[in-house]
Amino acid sequence: MKNRKFVLARRPDGTPRPDDFRLETEELPTLGEGQLLVRNQFISVDPGMRAALDDVVSYTQPVPLGGVIPGATVGVVETSNNPKFKKGDFVAAGFGWQEYGLSDGRGIRIVPDGPMPSSTAIGVLGIPGLTAYFGLLSVGRLKEGDTVLVTSAAGAVGTAVAQIAALKGAKVVAVAGGAEKCQWLRDEIGVADVIDYRGVPDLAAAIAAMAPDGIDVLFDNVGNAMIDLTLPMMRQGGRIVVCGQVADYNIPASRKPGIVNTSAFISHRLTMSGFVAFDYAREFRTAWGEMTDWILEGKLKYREDIAEGFEKLPEAFIGLFGGKNFGRKLILVF
Amino acid sequence: MKNRKFVLARRPDGTPRPDDFRLETEELPTLGEGQLLVRNQFISVDPGMRAALDDVVSYTQPVPLGGVIPGATVGVVETSNNPKFKKGDFVAAGFGWQEYGLSDGRGIRIVPDGPMPSSTAIGVLGIPGLTAYFGLLSVGRLKEGDTVLVTSAAGAVGTAVAQIAALKGAKVVAVAGGAEKCQWLRDEIGVADVIDYRGVPDLAAAIAAMAPDGIDVLFDNVGNAMIDLTLPMMRQGGRIVVCGQVADYNIPASRKPGIVNTSAFISHRLTMSGFVAFDYAREFRTAWGEMTDWILEGKLKYREDIAEGFEKLPEAFIGLFGGKNFGRKLILVF
Repeated sequence: MKNRKFVLARRPDGTPRPDDFRLETEELPTLGEGQLLVRNQFISVDPGMRAALDDVVSYTQPVPLGGVIPGATVGVVETSNNPKFKKGDFVAAGFGWQEYGLSDGRGIRIVPDGPMPSSTAIGVLGIPGLTAYFGLLSVGRLKEGDTVLVTSAAGAVGTAVAQIAALKGAKVVAVAGGAEKCQWLRDEIGVADVIDYRGVPDLAAAIAAMAPDGIDVLFDNVGNAMIDLTLPMMRQGGRIVVCGQVADYNIPASRKPGIVNTSAFISHRLTMSGFVAFDYAREFRTAWGEMTDWILEGKLKYREDIAEGFEKLPEAFIGLFGGKNFGRKLILVF
Repeated sequence: MKNRKFVLARRPDGTPRPDDFRLETEELPTLGEGQLLVRNQFISVDPGMRAALDDVVSYTQPVPLGGVIPGATVGVVETSNNPKFKKGDFVAAGFGWQEYGLSDGRGIRIVPDGPMPSSTAIGVLGIPGLTAYFGLLSVGRLKEGDTVLVTSAAGAVGTAVAQIAALKGAKVVAVAGGAEKCQWLRDEIGVADVIDYRGVPDLAAAIAAMAPDGIDVLFDNVGNAMIDLTLPMMRQGGRIVVCGQVADYNIPASRKPGIVNTSAFISHRLTMSGFVAFDYAREFRTAWGEMTDWILEGKLKYREDIAEGFEKLPEAFIGLFGGKNFGRKLILVF
C-alpha cells in the first residue's frame, strides 16, 4: 500500500509558496504490535501552523526539512492491532498532510457516533472551537456584560468566539475583512456590530463608535498592529487574549509592527496573555458537552470551507494568508 | 501663614525642564470644621509622576495647568480640627510639592511611632516598597525557584524587588546603569548577578549568560525596548510585570519603541500585566508588617537620596530621567 504526503521542501521566505512543499509517495510499513492505520478523510490547514515552518521553536517544534507538514486530521481506522481502536472507528488526530496515518494510539481520540458530522471533530469541536472556548472563558475571563472585540471574526475561531461571547451575555464587536464575510456575520451568525476593516477609513474610530464605553476583552487573531490600535480603547482591568497573529506570521522580525501603546497596561491594569488550547486538555470534555448542546440548539453555528482533493493542500494553506478563506478550511481526501 | 508650592507652568515637551514649574506663595486659609494642617517634612519625586504632567488620562488624572505638582509627603500635624489627628502626629499623605497640606483627613494615614524613620513611610514602606511587594508577589505570582529579572534595580522599587525575590527563594538578575550602582547592589544589597547596561556591548547576551535557563518573572521599570529584548528569553508560563516605563515617559508616541517579539506570548504562554500599588490597598497592612520585620532583621535594605531645601524639587525630579538618582529620591523640607 502507498501513502502520499506533502513534506517541507524548503523553509518559506515570507508568505509560503507552492514549491515550499513537495509531494512524496512511500510504501506503508507493516503494522506493528499495538499500532493502527488510519485513512485520513479530512485534513485541516491553519494559519497558526505557519510558525512551525520556520526554524525556531514556537508552540510546536519546527518541522524538519523533508518532514510531513502538520495538520489536524479526522479519518477512519483501516486496520488495528490496538485493542482500543477497531476497524471503522472515526478518529481525530494530527497526522498532518498525508493520506494515511500510522499510530500507537497516543494523542488520537475516537470521534463518538452522534449527530455531528465527522469534520467537526477538527473544526468547531476540534482545536478551533476549543481555542475559542478556553481563550474567551479561561484566558479572557469573560464576564456577563463585558464588551468583547474579536478579530478575524469570520474565521473558525473568531466565529465561535463571537457566538460564545454573546451566549454568555457579552456585547460583541466583530472585525472581518470584506463585505461578504461581514454580511454573513450579521445575517447568519447574528452579530449586530460588524466592521469590515477593508471598508472603513479609520478602524480605531469605527471600533470606538461601536464600543463607546471601551473594550473589556480583545480576542485577537491578527497581530501586533491590531493590539496596538486597540490598547487605548481598553477598559480598566481589560484582558487581551493573544490567540493568533495571522498578519505577522509571514513578516520578518525586523519589519514586524510593534506594540507601542503600553502605558495603558499601567493606567488601565491590563493583562495580555498567550495560550494554546492544549493547555486546557483536562477540561476538553466539559467544553465538548457544552458546545455540542449549543450547536444542536442552533446557538453555535459554524462554517466549513471544504476543498476536495489531497493535492489541494498547499494552495489551500497559502490562500489563508490572502484573507480569502471563510470558515474552517478543510481538505476532503476521500 | 504662608504656603509655598510648585505648580505646573506648562506641560513638559519631552524631558521636563525647570521652567515647566513655577514657585508660588499663597496665604493659608483658616482651618475649617474637621480639617487639619500638616507641615510637610519630606516630599518625594517619582519618575512615574511624569505621566500626570501630560494632558492625557493615565493612572492619575492630568495635573491642570497651575495645579500643584503631585508627590508623596510625610509631615507633622500643626493644627487639627479633626478628632482622628492631633498636633505632633506624623502623617503620610500626597500633598504634593508644597510646604503645607490642608486636609479633611481622607487619604492620609498616621505613621506609627516605632523604630523606622519617618521618611520610610513614603519610601520602602510607602508606595515604592508596596509596589515592589505586590508587583512581585501578586502580579508576578513569584514562586520559589523562579528566576527574576529586575530592571532599574538600584531604584527604590527595584532594590526592594531584588531583595524580596531573594527572600522568597528566587534567583535574581539585576540590571542597573553605572558601575557605582552595580557595585552597591553587589556589596550592600547582596545581589550576585548584576548587569551594568551601560557597560555591556549586548544586554540580551549578558542577561542570557546570567540566566541560561531563562526568566520566569520580568519586573520591568524601564519600558518597551527592555520588554522586547527580554521576551525571547522568557520561560514557559512567564510573567511580565509592567511597573514603570522610565525610558518611555518623555518620548512622544510616534517615536516610542514597540514590543515586537510577541510570538513568545503564544509559544511560551506569557502573561503581561500592569498595575499600581493602590490596587492592593486592602492588603497594605499585611505587607507593612512583613516588610518591617524584614527591615529590622537586616534582610530588606533601602537607600534614600535626600536633597535638602524645598526649592530643589524641580531639579531633583528632572534628575530622575538622567539615570543619576540612586535610591529613593526625597526632598527634606525642614
